[in-house]
Amino acid sequence: MAFQIEADLPPGLACLKNIEDLLRCPICFDFLNISMITKCSHNFCSLCIRKFLSYKLQCPVCNTQMTEPDLRNNRLLDDVVVHFQAARQQLSKVSFESPPISPKT
Amino acid sequence: MAFQIEADLPPGLACLKNIEDLLRCPICFDFLNISMITKCSHNFCSLCIRKFLSYKLQCPVCNTQMTEPDLRNNRLLDDVVVHFQAARQQLSKVSFESPPISPKT
Ligand SMILES: [Zn+2]
Ligand SMILES: [Zn+2]
Ligand SMILES: [Zn+2]
Ligand SMILES: [Zn+2]
Repeated sequence: MAFQIEADLPPGLACLKNIEDLLRCPICFDFLNISMITKCSHNFCSLCIRKFLSYKLQCPVCNTQMTEPDLRNNRLLDDVVVHFQAARQQLSKVSFESPPISPKT
Repeated sequence: MAFQIEADLPPGLACLKNIEDLLRCPICFDFLNISMITKCSHNFCSLCIRKFLSYKLQCPVCNTQMTEPDLRNNRLLDDVVVHFQAARQQLSKVSFESPPISPKT
Protein backbone atom coordinates (compact mmCIF):
# COMPACT_ATOMS: atom_id res chain seq x y z
CA MET A 1 0.00 0.00 0.00
CA ALA A 2 3.05 2.23 -0.17
CA PHE A 3 1.82 4.07 -3.30
CA GLN A 4 -1.03 5.57 -1.31
CA ILE A 5 1.32 7.00 1.29
CA GLU A 6 4.23 7.89 -0.95
CA ALA A 7 1.92 9.95 -3.18
CA ASP A 8 2.72 13.40 -1.87
CA LEU A 9 4.27 15.02 1.17
CA PRO A 10 3.54 18.76 0.96
CA PRO A 11 6.56 20.97 1.79
CA GLY A 12 4.99 22.02 5.09
CA LEU A 13 4.89 18.40 6.21
CA ALA A 14 8.52 17.56 5.42
CA CYS A 15 9.10 17.24 9.17
CA LEU A 16 6.91 14.12 9.16
CA LYS A 17 9.34 12.39 6.79
CA ASN A 18 11.66 11.36 9.64
CA ILE A 19 8.85 9.66 11.53
CA GLU A 20 7.64 8.00 8.36
CA ASP A 21 11.12 6.58 7.71
CA LEU A 22 11.34 5.22 11.25
CA LEU A 23 8.06 3.36 10.83
CA ARG A 24 9.23 1.40 7.78
CA CYS A 25 10.40 -2.21 7.83
CA PRO A 26 14.12 -2.56 6.95
CA ILE A 27 13.28 -5.64 4.89
CA CYS A 28 10.28 -4.63 2.74
CA PHE A 29 10.51 -0.81 3.20
CA ASP A 30 6.75 -0.60 3.60
CA PHE A 31 5.17 0.53 6.87
CA LEU A 32 5.69 -2.02 9.64
CA ASN A 33 2.93 -4.60 9.52
CA ILE A 34 2.54 -6.48 12.82
CA SER A 35 5.82 -5.19 14.28
CA MET A 36 8.14 -7.66 15.93
CA ILE A 37 11.06 -6.44 18.01
CA THR A 38 14.26 -8.48 18.33
CA LYS A 39 16.47 -8.83 21.40
CA CYS A 40 18.85 -6.37 19.71
CA SER A 41 15.97 -3.82 19.53
CA HIS A 42 15.40 -3.95 15.76
CA ASN A 43 11.90 -4.04 14.31
CA PHE A 44 10.45 -5.85 11.30
CA CYS A 45 7.09 -6.93 9.94
CA SER A 46 6.17 -10.26 11.45
CA LEU A 47 6.11 -11.98 8.07
CA CYS A 48 9.35 -10.37 6.82
CA ILE A 49 11.45 -11.38 9.81
CA ARG A 50 9.99 -14.90 10.01
CA LYS A 51 10.79 -15.48 6.35
CA PHE A 52 14.31 -14.16 6.90
CA LEU A 53 14.89 -16.35 9.97
CA SER A 54 13.80 -19.42 8.05
CA TYR A 55 17.06 -19.34 6.18
CA LYS A 56 19.40 -17.35 8.44
CA LEU A 57 19.24 -17.22 12.26
CA GLN A 58 20.44 -13.67 12.74
CA CYS A 59 19.15 -10.11 12.79
CA PRO A 60 19.10 -8.71 9.23
CA VAL A 61 20.19 -5.30 10.53
CA CYS A 62 22.99 -6.01 13.01
CA ASN A 63 23.69 -9.73 12.49
CA THR A 64 23.10 -10.64 16.15
CA GLN A 65 22.30 -14.34 16.40
CA MET A 66 18.64 -14.98 17.17
CA THR A 67 15.76 -17.40 16.77
CA GLU A 68 12.05 -16.96 16.20
CA PRO A 69 11.07 -17.37 19.89
CA ASP A 70 13.25 -14.33 20.64
CA LEU A 71 10.80 -12.14 18.72
CA ARG A 72 8.39 -10.03 20.72
CA ASN A 73 5.31 -8.16 19.47
CA ASN A 74 5.78 -4.40 19.44
CA ARG A 75 2.09 -3.47 19.43
CA LEU A 76 2.57 0.17 20.31
CA LEU A 77 4.39 0.61 17.01
CA ASP A 78 1.44 -0.90 15.16
CA ASP A 79 -0.80 1.69 16.81
CA VAL A 80 1.64 4.49 15.98
CA VAL A 81 1.66 3.39 12.32
CA VAL A 82 -2.14 3.43 12.14
CA HIS A 83 -2.48 6.85 13.76
CA PHE A 84 0.47 8.29 11.86
CA GLN A 85 -1.08 7.32 8.54
CA ALA A 86 -4.38 8.88 9.60
CA ALA A 87 -2.70 12.10 10.79
CA ARG A 88 -0.59 12.30 7.67
CA GLN A 89 -3.64 12.01 5.45
CA GLN A 90 -5.55 14.55 7.55
CA LEU A 91 -2.70 17.07 7.50
CA SER A 92 -2.09 16.62 3.77
CA LYS A 93 -5.73 17.45 3.16
CA VAL A 94 -5.58 20.59 5.30
CA SER A 95 -2.37 21.57 3.58
CA PHE A 96 -3.88 21.19 0.11
CA GLU A 97 -7.06 22.99 1.00
CA SER A 98 -5.20 26.00 2.44
CA PRO A 99 -4.06 28.72 0.04
CA PRO A 100 -0.35 28.45 -0.84
CA ILE A 101 1.95 30.48 1.39
CA SER A 102 3.44 33.34 -0.63
CA PRO A 103 7.23 33.59 -0.42
CA LYS A 104 8.68 36.40 1.70
CA THR A 105 9.82 39.15 -0.66
CA MET B 1 9.05 18.62 30.41
CA ALA B 2 5.36 18.01 29.77
CA PHE B 3 4.42 21.69 30.13
CA GLN B 4 6.41 22.54 27.01
CA ILE B 5 4.53 19.98 24.95
CA GLU B 6 1.13 20.36 26.52
CA ALA B 7 1.21 24.12 25.84
CA ASP B 8 -1.01 24.24 22.77
CA LEU B 9 -2.27 21.90 20.09
CA PRO B 10 -3.86 24.04 17.37
CA PRO B 11 -7.21 22.70 16.11
CA GLY B 12 -5.63 21.68 12.78
CA LEU B 13 -3.24 19.40 14.62
CA ALA B 14 -5.80 17.57 16.73
CA CYS B 15 -5.03 14.45 14.70
CA LEU B 16 -1.59 14.36 16.31
CA LYS B 17 -3.15 13.92 19.74
CA ASN B 18 -3.61 10.18 19.29
CA ILE B 19 0.06 9.68 18.49
CA GLU B 20 1.05 11.89 21.39
CA ASP B 21 -1.05 9.80 23.77
CA LEU B 22 0.53 6.58 22.52
CA LEU B 23 4.01 7.93 23.20
CA ARG B 24 3.35 8.61 26.88
CA CYS B 25 4.48 6.38 29.72
CA PRO B 26 1.53 4.76 31.59
CA ILE B 27 3.33 5.39 34.88
CA CYS B 28 4.51 9.03 34.70
CA PHE B 29 2.31 10.18 31.75
CA ASP B 30 5.24 12.11 30.31
CA PHE B 31 6.74 11.16 26.95
CA LEU B 32 8.54 7.80 27.11
CA ASN B 33 12.11 8.34 28.25
CA ILE B 34 14.38 5.41 27.34
CA SER B 35 11.52 3.09 26.40
CA MET B 36 11.57 -0.44 27.72
CA ILE B 37 9.18 -3.04 26.33
CA THR B 38 7.92 -5.91 28.46
CA LYS B 39 7.24 -9.49 27.34
CA CYS B 40 3.55 -8.57 27.36
CA SER B 41 4.31 -5.76 24.87
CA HIS B 42 3.78 -2.80 27.22
CA ASN B 43 6.14 0.17 27.25
CA PHE B 44 7.45 2.33 30.09
CA CYS B 45 10.30 4.72 30.79
CA SER B 46 13.31 2.73 31.92
CA LEU B 47 13.37 4.44 35.29
CA CYS B 48 9.61 4.21 35.88
CA ILE B 49 9.36 0.46 35.26
CA ARG B 50 12.53 -0.35 37.20
CA LYS B 51 11.21 1.55 40.22
CA PHE B 52 7.89 -0.24 39.91
CA LEU B 53 9.50 -3.69 39.63
CA SER B 54 11.55 -3.03 42.73
CA TYR B 55 8.42 -3.49 44.81
CA LYS B 56 6.13 -5.56 42.57
CA LEU B 57 7.23 -8.11 39.98
CA GLN B 58 4.45 -7.63 37.48
CA CYS B 59 3.47 -5.40 34.57
CA PRO B 60 1.72 -2.25 35.86
CA VAL B 61 -0.68 -2.34 32.91
CA CYS B 62 -1.77 -5.98 32.57
CA ASN B 63 -0.37 -7.59 35.76
CA THR B 64 1.62 -10.24 33.88
CA GLN B 65 4.38 -11.54 36.13
CA MET B 66 7.81 -10.31 35.04
CA THR B 67 11.30 -9.46 36.22
CA GLU B 68 13.78 -6.79 35.25
CA PRO B 69 15.80 -9.04 32.88
CA ASP B 70 12.62 -9.50 30.83
CA LEU B 71 12.77 -5.83 29.84
CA ARG B 72 14.05 -4.99 26.38
CA ASN B 73 15.04 -1.59 25.01
CA ASN B 74 12.55 -0.23 22.48
CA ARG B 75 14.91 2.24 20.80
CA LEU B 76 12.74 2.91 17.79
CA LEU B 77 10.15 4.41 20.13
CA ASP B 78 12.78 6.75 21.56
CA ASP B 79 13.53 7.94 18.04
CA VAL B 80 9.84 8.36 17.27
CA VAL B 81 9.41 10.47 20.43
CA VAL B 82 12.29 12.76 19.44
CA HIS B 83 11.09 13.25 15.88
CA PHE B 84 7.45 13.55 16.91
CA GLN B 85 8.28 16.36 19.32
CA ALA B 86 10.27 18.15 16.61
CA ALA B 87 7.50 17.72 14.02
CA ARG B 88 4.87 18.83 16.48
CA GLN B 89 6.78 22.01 17.28
CA GLN B 90 7.43 22.67 13.59
CA LEU B 91 3.79 22.18 12.63
CA SER B 92 2.51 24.30 15.52
CA LYS B 93 4.75 27.11 14.31
CA VAL B 94 3.46 26.87 10.73
CA SER B 95 -0.07 26.72 12.03
CA PHE B 96 0.35 29.85 14.14
CA GLU B 97 2.12 31.75 11.39
CA SER B 98 -0.58 30.99 8.82
CA PRO B 99 -3.61 33.25 8.64
CA PRO B 100 -6.68 31.78 10.34
CA ILE B 101 -8.92 29.78 8.05
CA SER B 102 -12.16 31.67 7.49
CA PRO B 103 -15.31 29.67 8.12
CA LYS B 104 -17.28 28.54 5.06
CA THR B 105 -20.29 30.83 4.69
ZN1 LIG C 1 8.41 -5.83 6.20
ZN1 LIG D 1 19.55 -6.37 15.35
ZN1 LIG E 1 7.61 7.10 32.81
ZN1 LIG F 1 1.78 -5.87 30.39
